[in-house]
Amino acid sequence: MTKRFNDRPIGIFDSGVGGLTVLKEIERLLPFENIIYFGDTARVPYGNKSKATIVRFSTECTLFLLKNKVKMIVIACNHSSALALEHLRSVFTIPIIGVITAGVNKALSLNSVNKIGVIGTRSTIISGSYKREIQSFNRRVKVYSQACPLFVPLVEEGLLKGRIVNQTIDMYLNKFRKNKVDTVILGCTHYPLLKFEISRYLKGTFIVDSAKEVASYTKGLLLKKGLLNSNKCKGKKIFYVSDEPLAFARLAKLFLKRKISTPKIVNV
Amino acid sequence: MTKRFNDRPIGIFDSGVGGLTVLKEIERLLPFENIIYFGDTARVPYGNKSKATIVRFSTECTLFLLKNKVKMIVIACNHSSALALEHLRSVFTIPIIGVITAGVNKALSLNSVNKIGVIGTRSTIISGSYKREIQSFNRRVKVYSQACPLFVPLVEEGLLKGRIVNQTIDMYLNKFRKNKVDTVILGCTHYPLLKFEISRYLKGTFIVDSAKEVASYTKGLLLKKGLLNSNKCKGKKIFYVSDEPLAFARLAKLFLKRKISTPKIVNV
Repeated sequence: MTKRFNDRPIGIFDSGVGGLTVLKEIERLLPFENIIYFGDTARVPYGNKSKATIVRFSTECTLFLLKNKVKMIVIACNHSSALALEHLRSVFTIPIIGVITAGVNKALSLNSVNKIGVIGTRSTIISGSYKREIQSFNRRVKVYSQACPLFVPLVEEGLLKGRIVNQTIDMYLNKFRKNKVDTVILGCTHYPLLKFEISRYLKGTFIVDSAKEVASYTKGLLLKKGLLNSNKCKGKKIFYVSDEPLAFARLAKLFLKRKISTPKIVNV
Repeated sequence: MTKRFNDRPIGIFDSGVGGLTVLKEIERLLPFENIIYFGDTARVPYGNKSKATIVRFSTECTLFLLKNKVKMIVIACNHSSALALEHLRSVFTIPIIGVITAGVNKALSLNSVNKIGVIGTRSTIISGSYKREIQSFNRRVKVYSQACPLFVPLVEEGLLKGRIVNQTIDMYLNKFRKNKVDTVILGCTHYPLLKFEISRYLKGTFIVDSAKEVASYTKGLLLKKGLLNSNKCKGKKIFYVSDEPLAFARLAKLFLKRKISTPKIVNV
């Protein structure tokens, strides 16, 4: 019997483990959905690589997920969403969503938003995608952008609080404090793990967690298209990586606060 | 006229910019040598990737340099030296040297060496290559190993001194202080840029800079094999990268303290 289209998994890809913050929020909101997650750990990180390279890598990730018969794709990587989403949508017909629009919509929906701070990897910030997206909806909002290249290595080192973390936050975000930014978008899927400390540093500032927003966007899309899984059992999660799986599994525990089944290695 | 074999360039490869510390020392010692440098910036870093992946990437880097008719190859990446050198030597006949043996030989040549500290990326340390290499020559020396995954991102962020750097050094190296380590091997080609601060923190400890050692090893090898360039003009340096060249050129300035010609992009 042919499997119903609705029962197909959601495909998520990221350069590595960061996208697990997105997976976590999607499984919280949509517990019955099957998910295939691909982390391109042989070529991680994407955040400091060029548009041409990111488009190539993202196309390969998409093709891999399509071979695995997913019903939609979530790009759980800000840098790939910034540089490759448009290209992927022009090439593939399956619904593909990225993390940027969801975060921007949330920020702009807030009352009294005037000054938005955007943080991300160096290339996400240089690409200007967040600023462009925000100002295409609302030109009066002032946007402050800040690259925070040390946040990812801090998270991957398991350093989520303490002196080094706080001083790094101060180094990057003191201009947000000075400029009294009212809303900050976490423009990298690793950053939700530093949310508590960032929030403590920027007291009173609303923090937009794109992982949460993209999960609710995913739910809305599946509802609208009538694509929710009809099977009401806990969804299966399958993990694939392009490099050895143990380091991924170790970090996954930090991100998901639970053990995962050992990822399978594939060469995309 | 066929170009003389001696006049061929030395090939150097690394996952990214780190190997420029090796290039810098080689051009200081061997100013007449032509050099082709390949930085695999589309797949950087290597330091957290598995043996199978590193062997594959290193083979591709080697093939690229061979196509460019180099006379010898220097693997200016500790992780690749640790995981791929043996394989490459078994496959290719051209002289190939890595950074590990040179650093280890220097450390063991020092008088009164008793306790060696080795620092590197997580995977270089986990691979145990330095420890094995040291103890294959001298079993009485005690080896303390410490992975320092934040050092590379600090260097690439241009943070070479200051509070964050000093606290990170303290976090990683306080056990070397407590154990009164007498010699430290910088087991990653980025680390020479932090040498001054590490040296200040570990007063009285001898710091082995593998970049310097591999340069003098290269000179020795070329002399021994009669392969020094017969042309006594300043050698040409050509840079290739696998991702966009501007970020590489920007960081190159930090490493070499001079501008370089724009690298060419190649897809290995």
